[in-house]
Amino acid sequence: MPWKKAAVADGSRDILQLAQQIDLPLRSTCGGKKICGKCRVIVEETGTPMSKPTELEKTALGKLLQKGYRLACETIPKGPVTVKIPEESQSKRQVVLTSDAPHPPPVRLRPTVRQYFAEVPSPVLNSVVGDRERLLLALQDTYGLKRLTLDPFALRKLPSALASAKRGVTATLWNKRDIIDLCPGTAPRLVGMAFDVGTTTVVGYLMDLETGERLSVTSAVNPQIVFGADVISRISFCQENENGLEKLRITIIKCLNGLIMDASQDAEIDPDLIMEVTVAGNTVMHHFLTGLDPRYLAMAPYAPVLQNPEDLKARDLGLEVGKSAYVHLLPLKAGFVGGDTIACILATGLHRTKVPSLLVDLGTNGEIVLACKDRLICCSTAAGPAFEGGHIRWGMRASAGAIEKVKVDPGTLDVRVKTITGKRPLGLCGSGLISATAEMIRRGIILEKGNFNKEIRSPRLRRGEDGGEFVLTWASEAGNNHDITVTQKDVAELQLAKSAICAGATLLREFFGGEQIRRILLAGAFGNYVDPQDACTLDLLPDSHTARIIGVGNAAGYGACLALLDGNKRREGQRLSKKLQYQELAATQRFQDLFIEGMRFTSARDYRVNP
Amino acid sequence: MPWKKAAVADGSRDILQLAQQIDLPLRSTCGGKKICGKCRVIVEETGTPMSKPTELEKTALGKLLQKGYRLACETIPKGPVTVKIPEESQSKRQVVLTSDAPHPPPVRLRPTVRQYFAEVPSPVLNSVVGDRERLLLALQDTYGLKRLTLDPFALRKLPSALASAKRGVTATLWNKRDIIDLCPGTAPRLVGMAFDVGTTTVVGYLMDLETGERLSVTSAVNPQIVFGADVISRISFCQENENGLEKLRITIIKCLNGLIMDASQDAEIDPDLIMEVTVAGNTVMHHFLTGLDPRYLAMAPYAPVLQNPEDLKARDLGLEVGKSAYVHLLPLKAGFVGGDTIACILATGLHRTKVPSLLVDLGTNGEIVLACKDRLICCSTAAGPAFEGGHIRWGMRASAGAIEKVKVDPGTLDVRVKTITGKRPLGLCGSGLISATAEMIRRGIILEKGNFNKEIRSPRLRRGEDGGEFVLTWASEAGNNHDITVTQKDVAELQLAKSAICAGATLLREFFGGEQIRRILLAGAFGNYVDPQDACTLDLLPDSHTARIIGVGNAAGYGACLALLDGNKRREGQRLSKKLQYQELAATQRFQDLFIEGMRFTSARDYRVNP
Repeated sequence: MPWKKAAVADGSRDILQLAQQIDLPLRSTCGGKKICGKCRVIVEETGTPMSKPTELEKTALGKLLQKGYRLACETIPKGPVTVKIPEESQSKRQVVLTSDAPHPPPVRLRPTVRQYFAEVPSPVLNSVVGDRERLLLALQDTYGLKRLTLDPFALRKLPSALASAKRGVTATLWNKRDIIDLCPGTAPRLVGMAFDVGTTTVVGYLMDLETGERLSVTSAVNPQIVFGADVISRISFCQENENGLEKLRITIIKCLNGLIMDASQDAEIDPDLIMEVTVAGNTVMHHFLTGLDPRYLAMAPYAPVLQNPEDLKARDLGLEVGKSAYVHLLPLKAGFVGGDTIACILATGLHRTKVPSLLVDLGTNGEIVLACKDRLICCSTAAGPAFEGGHIRWGMRASAGAIEKVKVDPGTLDVRVKTITGKRPLGLCGSGLISATAEMIRRGIILEKGNFNKEIRSPRLRRGEDGGEFVLTWASEAGNNHDITVTQKDVAELQLAKSAICAGATLLREFFGGEQIRRILLAGAFGNYVDPQDACTLDLLPDSHTARIIGVGNAAGYGACLALLDGNKRREGQRLSKKLQYQELAATQRFQDLFIEGMRFTSARDYRVNP
Repeated sequence: MPWKKAAVADGSRDILQLAQQIDLPLRSTCGGKKICGKCRVIVEETGTPMSKPTELEKTALGKLLQKGYRLACETIPKGPVTVKIPEESQSKRQVVLTSDAPHPPPVRLRPTVRQYFAEVPSPVLNSVVGDRERLLLALQDTYGLKRLTLDPFALRKLPSALASAKRGVTATLWNKRDIIDLCPGTAPRLVGMAFDVGTTTVVGYLMDLETGERLSVTSAVNPQIVFGADVISRISFCQENENGLEKLRITIIKCLNGLIMDASQDAEIDPDLIMEVTVAGNTVMHHFLTGLDPRYLAMAPYAPVLQNPEDLKARDLGLEVGKSAYVHLLPLKAGFVGGDTIACILATGLHRTKVPSLLVDLGTNGEIVLACKDRLICCSTAAGPAFEGGHIRWGMRASAGAIEKVKVDPGTLDVRVKTITGKRPLGLCGSGLISATAEMIRRGIILEKGNFNKEIRSPRLRRGEDGGEFVLTWASEAGNNHDITVTQKDVAELQLAKSAICAGATLLREFFGGEQIRRILLAGAFGNYVDPQDACTLDLLPDSHTARIIGVGNAAGYGACLALLDGNKRREGQRLSKKLQYQELAATQRFQDLFIEGMRFTSARDYRVNP
């Protein structure tokens, strides 16, 4: 919807004043001071006489004048008119985020950081009023903004901004409360950055806060990986090494700063223009990032140091963005259900769904949320690194050369593989392992208990270092001159991972009296790439045979972007975080039982073949 | 007054509860949790039975028990009693600051930083509440403290504080608003530091915030002096050199950090325990310290970047005190009337005086305030460095070996000098120059216009490099093997300085219709050492012949200490700063006229001698 039409009443006032009177969503960065040239409207030709275009209009609109464009602040209609408000002049615009998820919901642009133009009068000899006090008065008089604070580093920009400003200054405000930037004249660009900080992967999104446009995406392997592949081993590192926590903190902060630098260079902006950062991370990553001792996350009752969302100065975290910029950390629920899960729920709208729906964020930890009858319940299971290619003989991250899809010929047991970017195979990523295992079950190569079917005769099924193994790609076809195999041990790792997830989800389902799950949302880096049929074959989740399985991409990252672009989403996140019930799995015998049960591939029974 | 008596009513409750009921000023650091052992009272022997002393009382009181001491939280009276509250248990104590000023007014101990003990319940499995959220709830439940923030660096101490606390934690709060420190159990020491930052000298006072005791005083020459002796030359340095402002900022911050380190070592405390710093500085020093461009202070209309007081995190200034500590900067009035003047007014109570009183802070700049009929008016004059020994042939700072007092024999014109610490003379400090000049006027050596009396014949009065000069100390008696003299040029420098001060004060006096000044308060490093008679002889100030002249020592430093120990004094400072009228001298012709008039030593007429 590119236009917004509205009848504007007759009067002696200009269109901007009329629009404000009837609360039209017409935007003016300078507050009607006839400076910014941004309150563009298109006046419909109805014969009503208009005031003549002014110099400002000629400068600001150029050729657009001939297309009927006018500046609302300069145009005085002499009778009734109808104006269209073009997209770029609407004050409350909806945008659609670029996203790897199908059908991302639209976002309302209501950033916490906004700009206000103020005309600040000059000081007068013998009744001198300080620069800051005159600025605060101007912002109060023009916008009714009271009790503002002025960040000490933004304050340093005030004298020169006032001196070089011809008509006034633009103040960048956080939450209508704290002035975090000042510049002479009208506004520079306003950008922010959203982070999804995972145990294995960190993704950063550089966003334009005025258009909602995604300016750049950067990602990196979490460099803390050298201190341990999973959260528990990193917590141990903290406990066992002097300054362990500080080392981990600095490592992740450096990583974020690198991503900030990359994204800024990519989008050709100065990172000092980044005025807010949002972070969705799991609880342990959150604690590392903010320098909070995570050891108690690994001990019952697994209490996090904090749960509510937090706003702090980016400089206090050591982030190299605007000197007075803020960081918003999404709320945490429990030791192993963090801001990433809250962001996933926000991004998928799970908390507002009408049908029983399951959200699974598959990573090193698997967070599972079940929404049913206006209730939300969650748990976390240590799935292990199998879903990310870890602890797998030929496992690798989902990058070029990783096998992501496997087909096994039912007759010959010949194998065709599909790799990321089509390169010669180098290994298997998580979705490749799932695909291979599912296909091997369907061909009767893997049996119910996960063991290889010894009755099958094929050169691909052989004994290797780790016991039985099945060759997917012969060395001659591989990119690394090795036979790429799925070993008996790999299958066992996958069984542990899938069983942990399935048991957790089943337990949550039992809390709702076994209500049938109708939708399964797979989030996480590889959620999009898991074939629903494979998920069924593996019994990855309860009701996977009947439910609709939807990959929702990096929902945590998308949620972090939502929180960046729309302040209301933060409050929504906090509300849903309070509503979300948490189930500790370590405390229940039932989980242990379900876990052992879930190790089997029950659907293997249907595929039993006679050799 | 060591005791506070109070009748406490009968009841089943303990004395602390009873005392709280009738609002007795009885202090308990742990909020009645029976931990701190600080709510000591003395129960008067009236025969009313009391509960038996508990283990806590035995530990906390020891032998005091036999003297009738009890802990109010542990003692339950079975009938009416009278208790005395010893000084150390009173919640609102008055203390007297150590000060070089005569009769310093008492201070109420109402620091902005206070400690609160809270029992924080442990988290519970399956309904886990974060550490921070449990702490905030405990503080709300125990003390009604709401909407508290928790500084991110204090937050880092929370998990270990909770883990190692047996019964609870002590939270240090700033302004009942922000938690800036956490420790297990009861409170550590609470200290603060007050600074008087002058153009030439910086003084720091390390204060105990619980007793009001001055733990240590340190001072240093302002190291910015290498960039210029006075504020104007330092402002020029800022404008003319790349990163000039940053250099000046870092220089003064390093100086403050050095003083913090010295004072802490002297008092044997960890500088991390310093939880608040107050700063009274002139406007230019304030701007340097906070990194604000001072160039507009040197251009009409001389507007400061800010006027209202400011509270910011010490870490944002680069001060090496508690990581979450605050800095309070006293309000500024104008480009050359700063927080030091406000502090002087606070310290001397000038704003509440009933008789017309003049306050003069003599330093490189002379700030003058006149209080009359519930009004306050101020101005600033560039006195030049003469009062601090600058631009004087044998001038030096008021340190060991500086001549501070001079006597000239009326007959022989022989000279006796008194030096600081009695060392052999090395030069003259400001008060020495005043004393010498006054004495020379009284002996007829200096005439009305400031010129030497050529009719006097004495080996001491001779021609030197700078024209005429008078020898105070012969090389043989001096500590530096030089004749120490007062030159004709020195006298001219002093004339400029005294005339600037006198003209400013006279102008202010004219605003009040020439009301006679009854009291003259001389503040500044050397205010105490100026002999009132000398001030008269020099015509240093209007009405100096009739007014009572009082040296008030380093009133700015004392005011900074007041603001540190008593939050109410800050509000008082802000109110008086609003009330204070500022008169710009550069704008008035009358000042120029008075300045030229004031160059004369009119009293020299009375001392004319015939040789």
